[in-house]
Amino acid sequence: MSRIAYVNGRYVPHNEAAVSIEDRGYQFGDGIYEVIHIHEGRFVDTDLHLSRLARSLREVSIAPPMNDAALLVVLREVVRRNRVNEGIVYMQITRGVARRDHAFPKGIAPALVVTARHGTAFPRDIKAWAGTAITVPDIRWGRCDIKTVNLLPNCLAKQKAREAGTYEAILIDGSGGVTEGSSTTVWAVDANGVLRTRHLDDHILPGCTRAALSALLADNAIAFEERGLTEAEFRAAREVFLTSATSYVKPIVRVDGVAVGDGAPGPITTRLFGLFARHADGAAHNHAPRLASAAGIG
Amino acid sequence: MSRIAYVNGRYVPHNEAAVSIEDRGYQFGDGIYEVIHIHEGRFVDTDLHLSRLARSLREVSIAPPMNDAALLVVLREVVRRNRVNEGIVYMQITRGVARRDHAFPKGIAPALVVTARHGTAFPRDIKAWAGTAITVPDIRWGRCDIKTVNLLPNCLAKQKAREAGTYEAILIDGSGGVTEGSSTTVWAVDANGVLRTRHLDDHILPGCTRAALSALLADNAIAFEERGLTEAEFRAAREVFLTSATSYVKPIVRVDGVAVGDGAPGPITTRLFGLFARHADGAAHNHAPRLASAAGIG
Repeated sequence: MSRIAYVNGRYVPHNEAAVSIEDRGYQFGDGIYEVIHIHEGRFVDTDLHLSRLARSLREVSIAPPMNDAALLVVLREVVRRNRVNEGIVYMQITRGVARRDHAFPKGIAPALVVTARHGTAFPRDIKAWAGTAITVPDIRWGRCDIKTVNLLPNCLAKQKAREAGTYEAILIDGSGGVTEGSSTTVWAVDANGVLRTRHLDDHILPGCTRAALSALLADNAIAFEERGLTEAEFRAAREVFLTSATSYVKPIVRVDGVAVGDGAPGPITTRLFGLFARHADGAAHNHAPRLASAAGIG
Repeated sequence: MSRIAYVNGRYVPHNEAAVSIEDRGYQFGDGIYEVIHIHEGRFVDTDLHLSRLARSLREVSIAPPMNDAALLVVLREVVRRNRVNEGIVYMQITRGVARRDHAFPKGIAPALVVTARHGTAFPRDIKAWAGTAITVPDIRWGRCDIKTVNLLPNCLAKQKAREAGTYEAILIDGSGGVTEGSSTTVWAVDANGVLRTRHLDDHILPGCTRAALSALLADNAIAFEERGLTEAEFRAAREVFLTSATSYVKPIVRVDGVAVGDGAPGPITTRLFGLFARHADGAAHNHAPRLASAAGIG
């Protein structure tokens, strides 16, 4: 079956799906995106992703092309037409098509592209799911809280990770603090056994999976601190894991070639891996998880 | 006459010219661009632009889609088909089309898009060409020396300039230094009468017009220093002007609402405006300007 994409009001064969060369997404990276995990045919953490999408659009003054209810209809239709049961749905909204000029053009409509694709089933074996990482300098811009398609620095970092044979590049800022991965949130259990992830500000993306996991931690009375790690603290961590809509809870067992802890997924990571799997299964089975308090989104 | 664009080997009507939704330029801003000024039907500072294009591509590991001679044939053909005598030619090279993944895909060809458009004739009246500017924080990434299409921060800054009724937003970095404009190089005659522009490093684009003007200054024994200005020095400047392929030498007579000097183009700016006009005319008349020593490009 050939893939189908949604492009500005039409469902078209994926390999023919195209946008204008003067779409501002192409010429300026002037657009916003979201990726939602599909598990057992249902979306995981939809509300968080749509809230973040709305926030990102607001921050760059792009009008939503449609309301959330209509967008959900499109997302579901793309997933249905592509018969995706396990995978992702991707949406990208750009400022639209206009004669090239840095300043915002007037009177144009935003452009919406939606695609879906199959992925591997949700991982059940934490050891098989564990990965490795390198560290690289964080050279991104000052508004990484906005989920834009200005992703070249992230691509360059991810490429370095791949060339090193690892899963992720973890970014270290100019002050020697860990910010996040090139496409993931970084968590660690520090040398004192404290579960930590960086506080939210302009320099990291407010992760939806981060928010979902934070809510699960609260629900399960598991203590954690929103406090970033220095590079030294990070290298001394007992456990490290990443979260994202496509990484779920991903143990990192080696950083820059050095084992984290004993080089296997640790006890806290293992517990959270299980908790998040149940959360994803719950979403799939339509048991709405308690996420109203999820921080930092929207 | 309808416009014609070049897209990956074909000359197509501009309003039908399209790229895949999975072109990495669209999904990641994973591409490089150049804009060349066309004056009296000829390209200005072509060698500088092609050298910088090659350098940008190298820095992000995108293979050139063709050699310079072949690219020049395409550029000239697009200009010819659009009958542009005064205006610009725009070229954008992206990593190509691939299933979305941050890391570089293997085995794909880079994508090339070329457009041309008419512009106003080269300005002859410096007073009419003078403009104003605001200052905004420089929140861009750490490799602004690469001319990528990750331009959202530049767009946001330019939009602020436009909303303030000004021509340009001049960027002030975290250390309180002037870097450059959102799409221009910044020059100033400081309070001591010294002509200055910022030294080149990872934080500013090595401007082709900057390089051309530097060579003209050397040819004419006009002293200048490659030394950035602090915000305080900048606000005390006697003269301020911008350079770029489409701004030429652009006097800035008001910054943040405050007059620069006496609020009119100063003597040094006026002299350089004239020198650059002769340089552009010389390029148009195919008197090759002496640019072999132009610094910082390539």
